[in-house]
Amino acid sequence: MALLDEDRLFPTDPRSRDLARALYDGVRDLPILSPHGHTDPRWFAEDQPFPDPAQLFVTPDHYVFRMLCSQGVALSDLGVPRVDGGPTETDGRTIWRLFARHYHLLRGTPSRLWLDHSFQHVFGIDRRLSEATADWYYDHIADCLARPDFRPRALFERFNIEAIATTEAATDDLRWHRMIADSGWRGRVITAYRPDGVIDPEMSGFADNVALMGQQTGFDTTTWAGYLDAHRARRAFFIQHGATSSDHGHASARTEDLPQAEAAALFAKALRGQCTADEADAFRGHMLTEMARMSLEDGLVMQIHPGSRRNHSDDVLAMFGRDKGFDIPGRTDYVAALRPLLNAVGMDPRLTVILFTLDETAYARELAPLAGVWPCLRLGPAWWFHDSPEGMRRFREMTTETAGFYNTVGFNDDTRAFCSIPARHDVARRVDCSYLATLVATGRLAEDEAPEVARDLTHGLAKRAYKL
Amino acid sequence: MALLDEDRLFPTDPRSRDLARALYDGVRDLPILSPHGHTDPRWFAEDQPFPDPAQLFVTPDHYVFRMLCSQGVALSDLGVPRVDGGPTETDGRTIWRLFARHYHLLRGTPSRLWLDHSFQHVFGIDRRLSEATADWYYDHIADCLARPDFRPRALFERFNIEAIATTEAATDDLRWHRMIADSGWRGRVITAYRPDGVIDPEMSGFADNVALMGQQTGFDTTTWAGYLDAHRARRAFFIQHGATSSDHGHASARTEDLPQAEAAALFAKALRGQCTADEADAFRGHMLTEMARMSLEDGLVMQIHPGSRRNHSDDVLAMFGRDKGFDIPGRTDYVAALRPLLNAVGMDPRLTVILFTLDETAYARELAPLAGVWPCLRLGPAWWFHDSPEGMRRFREMTTETAGFYNTVGFNDDTRAFCSIPARHDVARRVDCSYLATLVATGRLAEDEAPEVARDLTHGLAKRAYKL
Amino acid sequence: MALLDEDRLFPTDPRSRDLARALYDGVRDLPILSPHGHTDPRWFAEDQPFPDPAQLFVTPDHYVFRMLCSQGVALSDLGVPRVDGGPTETDGRTIWRLFARHYHLLRGTPSRLWLDHSFQHVFGIDRRLSEATADWYYDHIADCLARPDFRPRALFERFNIEAIATTEAATDDLRWHRMIADSGWRGRVITAYRPDGVIDPEMSGFADNVALMGQQTGFDTTTWAGYLDAHRARRAFFIQHGATSSDHGHASARTEDLPQAEAAALFAKALRGQCTADEADAFRGHMLTEMARMSLEDGLVMQIHPGSRRNHSDDVLAMFGRDKGFDIPGRTDYVAALRPLLNAVGMDPRLTVILFTLDETAYARELAPLAGVWPCLRLGPAWWFHDSPEGMRRFREMTTETAGFYNTVGFNDDTRAFCSIPARHDVARRVDCSYLATLVATGRLAEDEAPEVARDLTHGLAKRAYKL
Repeated sequence: MALLDEDRLFPTDPRSRDLARALYDGVRDLPILSPHGHTDPRWFAEDQPFPDPAQLFVTPDHYVFRMLCSQGVALSDLGVPRVDGGPTETDGRTIWRLFARHYHLLRGTPSRLWLDHSFQHVFGIDRRLSEATADWYYDHIADCLARPDFRPRALFERFNIEAIATTEAATDDLRWHRMIADSGWRGRVITAYRPDGVIDPEMSGFADNVALMGQQTGFDTTTWAGYLDAHRARRAFFIQHGATSSDHGHASARTEDLPQAEAAALFAKALRGQCTADEADAFRGHMLTEMARMSLEDGLVMQIHPGSRRNHSDDVLAMFGRDKGFDIPGRTDYVAALRPLLNAVGMDPRLTVILFTLDETAYARELAPLAGVWPCLRLGPAWWFHDSPEGMRRFREMTTETAGFYNTVGFNDDTRAFCSIPARHDVARRVDCSYLATLVATGRLAEDEAPEVARDLTHGLAKRAYKL
Repeated sequence: MALLDEDRLFPTDPRSRDLARALYDGVRDLPILSPHGHTDPRWFAEDQPFPDPAQLFVTPDHYVFRMLCSQGVALSDLGVPRVDGGPTETDGRTIWRLFARHYHLLRGTPSRLWLDHSFQHVFGIDRRLSEATADWYYDHIADCLARPDFRPRALFERFNIEAIATTEAATDDLRWHRMIADSGWRGRVITAYRPDGVIDPEMSGFADNVALMGQQTGFDTTTWAGYLDAHRARRAFFIQHGATSSDHGHASARTEDLPQAEAAALFAKALRGQCTADEADAFRGHMLTEMARMSLEDGLVMQIHPGSRRNHSDDVLAMFGRDKGFDIPGRTDYVAALRPLLNAVGMDPRLTVILFTLDETAYARELAPLAGVWPCLRLGPAWWFHDSPEGMRRFREMTTETAGFYNTVGFNDDTRAFCSIPARHDVARRVDCSYLATLVATGRLAEDEAPEVARDLTHGLAKRAYKL
Repeated sequence: MALLDEDRLFPTDPRSRDLARALYDGVRDLPILSPHGHTDPRWFAEDQPFPDPAQLFVTPDHYVFRMLCSQGVALSDLGVPRVDGGPTETDGRTIWRLFARHYHLLRGTPSRLWLDHSFQHVFGIDRRLSEATADWYYDHIADCLARPDFRPRALFERFNIEAIATTEAATDDLRWHRMIADSGWRGRVITAYRPDGVIDPEMSGFADNVALMGQQTGFDTTTWAGYLDAHRARRAFFIQHGATSSDHGHASARTEDLPQAEAAALFAKALRGQCTADEADAFRGHMLTEMARMSLEDGLVMQIHPGSRRNHSDDVLAMFGRDKGFDIPGRTDYVAALRPLLNAVGMDPRLTVILFTLDETAYARELAPLAGVWPCLRLGPAWWFHDSPEGMRRFREMTTETAGFYNTVGFNDDTRAFCSIPARHDVARRVDCSYLATLVATGRLAEDEAPEVARDLTHGLAKRAYKL
């Protein structure tokens, strides 16, 4: 039995399905460009076997453990580590059985598609995961993981990854990227510059991070000018390690273009930990414009990922830390928020700013109209909770008519779950080809134009937008 | 001629339609669980015949009279009673003719589906309502209503209702529920605890209602402690009359978890009628958390129905009173609003909170991410203006990928219109089966898993979530 | 080769497609009613040939030049005139080649549909526009434009336009409408009263415009009473030139119903240029209610077009002026905003207010519930960025179930691009017929009722709502 329907995600009427399948056949084997994500560069540096099945599929995947948590399964029973090092389940098989017993909760979710895809295509499995098959699954996957062809570099090559970007804090030493480069392995694993920890005055450790950046670069980061110089130096260091983009995960899309003296004064307050919430927000907003100005010079593509309200549960944050599935999207404005940055540098042909959203109401109302006129703007793909068949469909239906295809940038998998990468790109290719097929079948796109668009959505747009 | 298409609401492509029909065949005859609604318990207590067709279908149905009002028909001409007892149309046939003349206004609305379903299935009618058939309709329905098999209890049984919940104010004496219980009739009609009148300081009669609750329970409701005890006592009284849930219809989803002294001070101000608008809102918000705490002990499931801006027309409110079709939804935030309650009690496995919305933008952005991680949260079905085929489809498409099926609770009809109950549940079953069929046809759900999900959406989830 | 698919925009399953085609065949040749738009009345007054192809299709069409701008093409290279009269490209052929080279950017957009429709149906072209065909296209269209049957009046007749409304400022002398009337030509070109320039204190030239209105009418517009009288007189003047509607393009939907003394005081401040932003907003809001009161007497239908954040780029505004593609929609509230006007005059049967939105989230949440109960309210069609196949589909799917069909007003093309008028109405007819066909195919509308609804959506509703 196949876990996956060969024609999954295609339209249901025969002509559109045939069109979609033909388009998909033209792009299914194109190499994967993964310009934004959170895989661990250490995997590719050390090339050690992945640990047990639970640690591969359950413990690190917030999509999975949040769903089980929602039905009363304790995070500690799933092996999610505690901040205080206190006891959590460590037996992989016990965790796996708990996961298998709740697998039905994922019906209708993209996680189910990604998992079944990994099971079938990465591990060659032909039966469904359930309480009855849990042990068989566990043994089979564990056996595979012990083999050399399931090590990270082997999977990287088998997944046909042309380039993958990881994301590192501005103060990261990038040792794993250096180790990869020094190893002679030819897989292209690049970094991305994520300066939130040295830009956000409300992030814990902000002043220490800024001081560390000073040590790393030799600039006096107690001054505004030195702080900016240190950014320039760290960006150059990241570029040496392959970075083509920076990434900014602020709570809002607010930008500011303050007079330099005012920005310097805010920075001084931030270092002293004296910013009000609004001042911290203004400082973050101003720094986006400074980052954009630096991009004019060094060419890094900016990615703005706003709108997540982090750590909704105080208890979970205290016990398990950040990124434990309790980040919830909220409304996000773009029109007024981006105006200062755009008016400062938005018409400059050297700048590319890629916008993401967790608030789909902005697609047709704000993001497509903005990207459809400002030369610097591009739309990132459907993100996070919207990285799903319906989410991708809504993204295309609500952005294409105003922004077209060429103001979008292809797919990002944005994942920590390595084995899900082929699955996620496959979903995106199928949904995009289905969308194009529907346009052709309804006379909104010529049949001879669609294959080129399909290749652009799969490969060309990401390559150009991210300068890969 | 049949008024209804046997395959209505199913997908249009043949394979999906066949899948949907098969799934529907498996659930069409399951008994109805109606865990939230506004039918009148007196009907089932007294079991008297319903009055004339106009009073059954037109005068009490705000969906119907608001549409006629929107095209210039006066509410008084439809027999809607005036607050001052002034003259309105009382002749059922005259009202019915006016309704029939405007029946085309309902084209494309769910009301049309519900009405035609009632006409065909409850009254055996085979011709369309129009000016030409108005009198025939009136006579036919009036004749039926005079027969014993059209009395409330007979219809209840014919509709195959396993349990129905009505909604009563916290100070209601529940006499009709007692009368039903005492009658020996086996129909299960339960109440639900609706304390808005004793929780909302801006509701007219608030202080009197609180005083009445004191008399009913013997607690001193002029004190904060006595007020909370009185709630506990009334909840117990409602539970004796079958209640398994409480219901809260605040203007927003705001919750608070105030220090007890602060809550007590607000309560004192509220009793004196001195709360500012924001204080009243804070008090309502705090009381949701108190209700949740009581639910930990007594097990009542909480329902939160926020977001209606009530009584948009001053003139209609003055002349005809509340609930006359002039309630308009507005934007509703959930993420910040629910945080206090959730951080207070949201991880407790004894709590179930069912969230509803009139703001569909919250489905994918806020509600599915919240329900997809917090153990206490469940999503109520598409509600009120969204209790419709498109509304239900959007609900599934925008919640399933993040919250799955098992964080939803099946269907609520929420109706005052008794004859529409089978129609509404039938629409929900058809739309859900069509959604599942589409998932199967596009490889997002295995064909052998779909029937179980269909039964859960129809019956199992409501039974479990509402503890029926 | 045909540029257009004969079955474009119809559903893909055979039965629905057949139903849609049959409905479309019943309305495709109905005359065009264009009750809201921005064509230039001078065209029809003077009946001179249109200038070159670039000036017909590129330079004035903000949909087209904004898309090219978004990919780095300078507006000056597209011939968009500069405010300072500085140099821009003036050679039509050069502009046309630049346009042709970027034509692929419009894939998937309604502009592509409109342009191909114009090329095929107005100019008889059978090959696709591209760099290779650019010169052939240019020559062919230029040749056509030189012929008498491509002059404005000839095209007006060929397009089968029953009536078209232009939009003029309140202080316009309407000379072109007078010239059309005096010419004996029978084409019906009417005006619409657009008083933003004499209502919005923040519009440049406000006080001068009000003074001019005084001179035009003989009323003392330095007083509140005289100012209102001057409006009445100008409205009467517009009605003499065919106007049946007024049009209001405020940034928000805010209305106020202030005491007259307060309104008069605000007006005095506005004339002195001393209003705060909030006072200006309150004055605009109050004037909507005054306009509504005047409509009770003179019968003009009100159109409210809120929600555009104008001129997002300071540089583009400074160099090229207004309406250059940098207007971006924002969130728009209707429920609280419209309440003052509606409570003042909203139940009066003499009033019609047509609401538009750029914020689709308001469709199901606010606009349909409002229009579904207030007698004066009607919903204008999907507007501007939403004047597109997906936009129209979302409009119907999110408004019909609550507001029905009869609280909508048919289609508006709202265009400056004359040749796109048949294309746009054709798109609307196809999308509406497809929507109706889907309702029929899914048992939500009887097959025998659909043709009447199709004719109403195409012709009847616009004729009645706009009193044409």
